[in-house]
Amino acid sequence: MTLPIDDAGLLATLDDLDPAQLGGLGDMSPGQFRAAAHATVDVLADYLEHVEDFAILPPIEPGTLRDQLPSEPPDGPEPIGAILGDVARLVEPNATHWQHPGFLAYFATTASGPGILGEFVTAVLGQNPMLWRTSPVGTELEEVVVGWLRRALGLPDVFDGLLTDTASTSSLIAIAAAREAAGLDAAALGLAGRPEIGAPVVYASEEAHSSIEKACMTLGLGRSACRRIPTDDVYAMRTDALEAALAADRAAGRLPIAVVATIGTTSSTAVDPVPAIADVAEREGLWLHVDAAYGGAAALLPARRALFVSWERADSIVVNPHKWFFTPLDASLLLSRRMPSLRAAFSLVPEYLRTLDREQPVHDFNEYQPQLGRRMRALKLWFLVRYFGLEGLRRRIDAHCRMAADLAAQVDADPDFERLAPVPFSTVCLRWRPAELVGREDDPEVRARLDAANERLMAAVNASGEIFLSHTRLQDRFAIRVAIGNLRTEPRHVAHAWALLRSEAARLTR
Amino acid sequence: MTLPIDDAGLLATLDDLDPAQLGGLGDMSPGQFRAAAHATVDVLADYLEHVEDFAILPPIEPGTLRDQLPSEPPDGPEPIGAILGDVARLVEPNATHWQHPGFLAYFATTASGPGILGEFVTAVLGQNPMLWRTSPVGTELEEVVVGWLRRALGLPDVFDGLLTDTASTSSLIAIAAAREAAGLDAAALGLAGRPEIGAPVVYASEEAHSSIEKACMTLGLGRSACRRIPTDDVYAMRTDALEAALAADRAAGRLPIAVVATIGTTSSTAVDPVPAIADVAEREGLWLHVDAAYGGAAALLPARRALFVSWERADSIVVNPHKWFFTPLDASLLLSRRMPSLRAAFSLVPEYLRTLDREQPVHDFNEYQPQLGRRMRALKLWFLVRYFGLEGLRRRIDAHCRMAADLAAQVDADPDFERLAPVPFSTVCLRWRPAELVGREDDPEVRARLDAANERLMAAVNASGEIFLSHTRLQDRFAIRVAIGNLRTEPRHVAHAWALLRSEAARLTR
Repeated sequence: MTLPIDDAGLLATLDDLDPAQLGGLGDMSPGQFRAAAHATVDVLADYLEHVEDFAILPPIEPGTLRDQLPSEPPDGPEPIGAILGDVARLVEPNATHWQHPGFLAYFATTASGPGILGEFVTAVLGQNPMLWRTSPVGTELEEVVVGWLRRALGLPDVFDGLLTDTASTSSLIAIAAAREAAGLDAAALGLAGRPEIGAPVVYASEEAHSSIEKACMTLGLGRSACRRIPTDDVYAMRTDALEAALAADRAAGRLPIAVVATIGTTSSTAVDPVPAIADVAEREGLWLHVDAAYGGAAALLPARRALFVSWERADSIVVNPHKWFFTPLDASLLLSRRMPSLRAAFSLVPEYLRTLDREQPVHDFNEYQPQLGRRMRALKLWFLVRYFGLEGLRRRIDAHCRMAADLAAQVDADPDFERLAPVPFSTVCLRWRPAELVGREDDPEVRARLDAANERLMAAVNASGEIFLSHTRLQDRFAIRVAIGNLRTEPRHVAHAWALLRSEAARLTR
Repeated sequence: MTLPIDDAGLLATLDDLDPAQLGGLGDMSPGQFRAAAHATVDVLADYLEHVEDFAILPPIEPGTLRDQLPSEPPDGPEPIGAILGDVARLVEPNATHWQHPGFLAYFATTASGPGILGEFVTAVLGQNPMLWRTSPVGTELEEVVVGWLRRALGLPDVFDGLLTDTASTSSLIAIAAAREAAGLDAAALGLAGRPEIGAPVVYASEEAHSSIEKACMTLGLGRSACRRIPTDDVYAMRTDALEAALAADRAAGRLPIAVVATIGTTSSTAVDPVPAIADVAEREGLWLHVDAAYGGAAALLPARRALFVSWERADSIVVNPHKWFFTPLDASLLLSRRMPSLRAAFSLVPEYLRTLDREQPVHDFNEYQPQLGRRMRALKLWFLVRYFGLEGLRRRIDAHCRMAADLAAQVDADPDFERLAPVPFSTVCLRWRPAELVGREDDPEVRARLDAANERLMAAVNASGEIFLSHTRLQDRFAIRVAIGNLRTEPRHVAHAWALLRSEAARLTR
């Protein structure tokens, strides 16, 4: 994609404006900003208009962009027109196009129009809602938006919360809170050199997201503290295995502190049996954290609420607006009914942050997270919930579920393909498995052949540039994931993915 | 500030566009986005043009904004024009105006024009450079920009690094790496229930930032593991006290793992004696982390390099572009000469993130940080370094240092004011102390009176709405900080702050 003529003209005009800043101080003037920002809008609107013209995965090798850029930083100023020109010339062709409607890999992150505009306003206002005082609007919009999302998800008002960057951070906060709730006083005393405490253990299924294990690494619990519980034939945690692991750990003198139940795992979007896990957590005095980072958005749909039965019994819940809620990176919602435990894990108020002139207690959100400084993440959510309306969001999430169900039906009807997991949300796990190989998978050679063939198949589809899929392993089989959740994806894109999978499989077979 | 007429007209036009999305699916169309984004530009350029018309701290009580918003999320869609109208009506009047040139509190965070445009492009592209594959441009621009900043700071190429959200996260990563470098294998095994290891200790001065203590809390070391070393009369770490603390901890069987030296503390911008601390770290086998989150930007100035002597001996260094480098929140630069230790602390590669088709080793930045997902933070830095040029950035940072030196000279010349700390950078710590009270501070009543008077003085200045200052305590005295670093601050703003301090002090005296 090259820059349209009229933009090029506008960019040239910007060059004329620039000398004003040569040798000067301060920022670009508001007038220069206005002109440069209007030019940026056109570059970006062009990008969104033509995003389907790009290969989703750029056909480049590592170093392609780096080698085109000087390793020395520039000493003198460059006109903004030249920099914007390089967005089209260097940046766009080297991007993985997450906004392309054929992006069906991982879980989608859509930068929706209203979400983008919210980010733009956020960048200009430069709020830091670490304290109420440093951003009343950032703090109170966060309170309001957290309340909106909580209600939209159907959760009771014992839940309060905050917005963090990612589910990794949200789950880390939850497990740190569990550490405090278990009475370890770890924030004050740490975990080392304390023979009086047992080694803490956190339970999560084999299919739980890597961020749980990473949180254990970060928090000084260690990967070894993350007990991975086996799953059943639909990749859901086996409660009997959870109970057995708990008993073994207690017998060994270890200290179970938390269990993580996932509603919508990353590999196959499996749903752990939350009611049974909540029973165990209650009986054993464990913090129950529900990871619904991807799946949570479906709680907006009354028809899907059954997937969320008992999640209101959790101590904490994470749902990521930057996944299936069309919010630009980054935004993760952490809800908890035990906010004082979060505060116990992270509150620290040095003198230079003490506010002097307020009698009323206010939310100083930095006290609930590992970082002090924080971006205002509420505004973009406020923009998009209002722009689409809850009903509009429901309709869009529902459409994704229906596209996935349609694809699942087509996979099921094809004798040479196999669906590898239930489809409770909007992600289909499948593989090519020609009919003649049914029943022959006890043979390790057949299994290896199928894995290799599916790896090649996915690579061939991705090489088209029109569709981008990613993979996982399910019951030690290579599984191709078709993850629908991009706001711009239409049924025709899913149909095209399926057509490509079939035609490439046929081609590989020849 | 109300919306100018022409914007209101444009916003009304947007309302007409909106019905297209009622009942529809997908995002706003690229055409709608173009129109809405142009309207947003005008709202935001108006804001920047008129930012000085706002009281920096909004004269509101907690709940003011919250009480104006519905607690129920809207079901139906709202036109984008109405939402943008609310930016001027509800958002701006409830913001703390970090972009106001009279904002001299904490440390400034400037959203510079080119930085804002970089954020805007970032929001649209929606890159997630967790893996090279998920964003070649995000990954390679980060490599390039990290290299640019490293060179600009005068650091050798044994340093590599990454961009994180905040100094809190950067320092947490550094201390987690120190944990691994000390051979604790904490990422794998955790810290609990291991009688064979001593309790780890991290050293930092009494004036070090709270984020160091918070990192110890998060990492399972505990606040108790953060040994606060006394400072000298200019608030710099006393190396003799560091050595004494180390000896005492070793004698008690504890395990010193890291020392944090600060170049530009948060309270008074003091500079710890890095050469002596580096000697101790080397001799004792400690990880040396240098916190130059604020001060680091001054390393661009050859004339200030003496403040940074020996920092190249550090194992890791943090400098925050979102402080004195005019980058919109959030952006923190973490440099290290021991990247494998960072990777040992945080690397975890589940199957669904394994990349299949690359032979060359690439930077998958998620392996160096607690979070998996990450925003593309390099683009805004690429924009602003190119727009201003290094020479332009130097000129601006130098101007701030000179404004601070001028103010310091005026404070020194006023018999009723007292400067409380050296001014190596761009922050002046001062208090009102009438000449007749000199030498009478052994009297606790006099001390209390001075504290109370300065607290009132700062509140009076802040109540003007034209200047915003924050405070700290230095040698147990209430100290007012005048922290220059906002790109839009001109000498006239600093002069106005000083005039207000003097006139309000005179008024309080009457």
